[in-house]
Amino acid sequence: MNVPLSPLMFLRRATKLYPNKTGVVCGEHRFTYSQFSERVRRLSTFLQMAGIRKGDVVAFLSRNCHRLLEAYYGVIECGAVLLPLNIRLTPEDFQYALNHSGARLLFFEDDFLDSVDRFRSDLSTVKEFVLLDRAPISEPFPCLSYEDCLAAAEASLAQVPLEDENDVAELFYTSGTSDRPKGVMLTHRNLYLHALNVALFLQTQDVDVQLHTIPLFHANGWGATHSITCMGGTHVMLKRFDPRRVFQLIESEKITTFNLVPTMATSLLQENHALQADFSGLRLIHLGGSAVPWTLVEALEKRFGCAVTCGYGLSETSPVLTVAHPKSHLKDAGETRYRRLAMTGLELPGTEVRVVDEEGREVAPDARAVGEIIARGNTVMKGYWNDPVETAKALRKGWLYTGDMAVVDSEGYILIVDRKKDLIIRGGENISSVEVEKALYAHPAVLEAAVIAVPDPKWGEVPKAFVVLKPETECTSEELRRHCRKTLAAYKIPDSFELVASLPKGGTGKILKRLLRAPYWSQSEKQVH
Amino acid sequence: MNVPLSPLMFLRRATKLYPNKTGVVCGEHRFTYSQFSERVRRLSTFLQMAGIRKGDVVAFLSRNCHRLLEAYYGVIECGAVLLPLNIRLTPEDFQYALNHSGARLLFFEDDFLDSVDRFRSDLSTVKEFVLLDRAPISEPFPCLSYEDCLAAAEASLAQVPLEDENDVAELFYTSGTSDRPKGVMLTHRNLYLHALNVALFLQTQDVDVQLHTIPLFHANGWGATHSITCMGGTHVMLKRFDPRRVFQLIESEKITTFNLVPTMATSLLQENHALQADFSGLRLIHLGGSAVPWTLVEALEKRFGCAVTCGYGLSETSPVLTVAHPKSHLKDAGETRYRRLAMTGLELPGTEVRVVDEEGREVAPDARAVGEIIARGNTVMKGYWNDPVETAKALRKGWLYTGDMAVVDSEGYILIVDRKKDLIIRGGENISSVEVEKALYAHPAVLEAAVIAVPDPKWGEVPKAFVVLKPETECTSEELRRHCRKTLAAYKIPDSFELVASLPKGGTGKILKRLLRAPYWSQSEKQVH
Repeated sequence: MNVPLSPLMFLRRATKLYPNKTGVVCGEHRFTYSQFSERVRRLSTFLQMAGIRKGDVVAFLSRNCHRLLEAYYGVIECGAVLLPLNIRLTPEDFQYALNHSGARLLFFEDDFLDSVDRFRSDLSTVKEFVLLDRAPISEPFPCLSYEDCLAAAEASLAQVPLEDENDVAELFYTSGTSDRPKGVMLTHRNLYLHALNVALFLQTQDVDVQLHTIPLFHANGWGATHSITCMGGTHVMLKRFDPRRVFQLIESEKITTFNLVPTMATSLLQENHALQADFSGLRLIHLGGSAVPWTLVEALEKRFGCAVTCGYGLSETSPVLTVAHPKSHLKDAGETRYRRLAMTGLELPGTEVRVVDEEGREVAPDARAVGEIIARGNTVMKGYWNDPVETAKALRKGWLYTGDMAVVDSEGYILIVDRKKDLIIRGGENISSVEVEKALYAHPAVLEAAVIAVPDPKWGEVPKAFVVLKPETECTSEELRRHCRKTLAAYKIPDSFELVASLPKGGTGKILKRLLRAPYWSQSEKQVH
Repeated sequence: MNVPLSPLMFLRRATKLYPNKTGVVCGEHRFTYSQFSERVRRLSTFLQMAGIRKGDVVAFLSRNCHRLLEAYYGVIECGAVLLPLNIRLTPEDFQYALNHSGARLLFFEDDFLDSVDRFRSDLSTVKEFVLLDRAPISEPFPCLSYEDCLAAAEASLAQVPLEDENDVAELFYTSGTSDRPKGVMLTHRNLYLHALNVALFLQTQDVDVQLHTIPLFHANGWGATHSITCMGGTHVMLKRFDPRRVFQLIESEKITTFNLVPTMATSLLQENHALQADFSGLRLIHLGGSAVPWTLVEALEKRFGCAVTCGYGLSETSPVLTVAHPKSHLKDAGETRYRRLAMTGLELPGTEVRVVDEEGREVAPDARAVGEIIARGNTVMKGYWNDPVETAKALRKGWLYTGDMAVVDSEGYILIVDRKKDLIIRGGENISSVEVEKALYAHPAVLEAAVIAVPDPKWGEVPKAFVVLKPETECTSEELRRHCRKTLAAYKIPDSFELVASLPKGGTGKILKRLLRAPYWSQSEKQVH
């Protein structure tokens, strides 16, 4: 028998088996799975009443909140595609993603009202707006209220059966090497199989209470969501990452597990107010999003007294491709064990991960030969939304080319050492250097610009810009920074600007970024954080 | 991206990530995953050389042995279908299954040579025989030797890519209510998703060393196989279930987990020689195959000092449909916890299990209303091999009708209390009462016969026959027993025969078995073991 795989199965099961258990905690709100599920049903019904049909895109602009979690099920329940926007992007980015995806409805939090007001007149497909966290408004533009919409959706409509598990369920715009973000399409099947893998390797159970430290619109965030529902665990939403609040919630909600990007981990360790908190319920901290120093794993394990694992993945892979669990028969101990735990890791079942040279041959497992990580399997995306060119670049001959350069040791553990793609990852956020360069080129004084990643103790790596000014012009770093602020999301603005007389170039005139990068990474064994 | 799901992915991964780890232990033999995988490749190559093509059936008649485990991967690797025969059946049963399935090759152990010799001339499709555990022979009929076949299959042939995950991988003949066993078709997708569920709910990890106590040709046996390979654990084969040997292996191989039918569990508990064995490595005992008294769970937990879980399923469901894990938030303790652990349980993700009345409505969750268990999901079989009539009886309107009658409590836990189908389960082996009755009717003195299940302290339930003799004939119980031995597998022969003057009948003349059963089950809260 063949029933379409979907994360909707997880919510159905949790609602059936755990109806009266607290499923979602969000600030003062607590919902049993039965209550949460009823809200999800109402959202789905409202969307159908609003004319949303199979395959339509519904966008959310929201911090972590039970309403965004409701969208993870309610939107796809009626056959639509959920587009959770990264709140850190600029209004121009939002507008681009909304128009490019053809989104029909935009749900957003009051905080973003001004931002939405700035671009709404340029939206080509969004016809209706819904405020998530306040009463309806008519000025500056008409917005419905989410709670009103749910209240009005009392009657049940006929369910929209999922016929094809390869239908797109979620859409995430992610920065890559192109100047525009691309819409990663994840199918119901992708999400179902990914959730099982995550639950299996992170040993999720119904006893788990997960604090959603990572924004749900982020790879590391959405990946965790479905595995918790799958097992009937409890979701605890965290609106903003604040170490003190994290410590409070660990104690008050008896959190058993959460995910962190390394930058968050560092800030938790620096937080001294936590000395009194009770961490005895903690079972596991999972790290991802960028490379993890082994000393960080050790520090977390010692500080929180729980297991620490690391994993690797991309938005394009749902996201978890690998987990660096120590093989039990190796009996690693001490630093060896920590180094192992901090690696990129081992492929999960159902996903094949290889490190290959230019000719597609697997590199020698000698921890020295460098190749590109490629992956194939059922957690790899369907492609980029409405972008066959970029899809064909990423998915070649049945493999996803990640652009991450790695070595493999004799035990098969992968370790990323460099990046092929012109991409900077600042504390877990992808930044396209091409996009930043394009912003710089828009300044009238800029002749040439090159943006590279340089190491940073807090963020792992940050963007640095090298700029050649046009003859007989003047411009300061401060002015370039101000200029960037106009069009770039804050996290994309280079941490430093260096005005130089010329940039190193190859025979074809191409800027040789590796020569710019070299001096910054010479002290490091890797060419990437 | 969509890659066909298959348990072959698990062996590929285990071989890649755990090449030098012991994957399989069988008597004196120890194979690393790399060695095991090479043998699997050779088996697959041999089968291709022998003319086996996609969809062909390859049969094995073998006790638990590394060679049978090799077949689990080698046969399906080349696109063929594995048919593992239940060794407890009669030569006539073997012949039936081989001819009905159209098996092309038969691999068997030397122990079964005489048996195979008895029916081989009646085989219509089997053209070649391979002895698993000895040199080739020419008398009484020509047989190749398994090890010779593997040795000859040195060169690699082109791989046979799996194109459709819904292709049949395994075929198991199981007794139901019809007089002939039916061939349950399990697909690559069924097996993959089932293995993930089992690994998830039994928390299988690479540290696990599983003792294959249950024959691999049995639902409870094959279900465990793939989840261990999936996680890179170690298989330890057990040829025959012998409590002393089980205890020795638990200690010497540092077994962490094994599965039992309740009858096996009882015999382990009765074994006194074990008092000295070291069980400290044991993590989990999983019970299935027939209903479990809660006192047995308690006794096992106390005796072995490890976790004990129970599950329910059918050959038709890969097999595990439910596991009776206590929900963590209920905080069950003492007898309540044991009673919970011994129940039929809760559905696993991706599988929907309902208990419905005659009209298909779910029964009230009051632990009293009785309905039939129905299931839908991706671990439910594709159907019965070449048997559309029986398939249509079992799979109706998208649901598998199990014939098991159950109640549901307020927490959603299912408990089987009766059986709709005319089926007897003796220590985990299905017996069709129709088949036994048919054997009895073949005796010249028998006028009418009815076979029912009666409770038994060792086997849970056993068949009992009621027989009405033809006028003016004579016959004893002993003679009926001797008669049954001619055509029935030993475990199917009724434990008792009762000669009666007449059988209770309904208005249409149908024998009312429930009236025959009633006196035997009146002391029990359930009408089935």
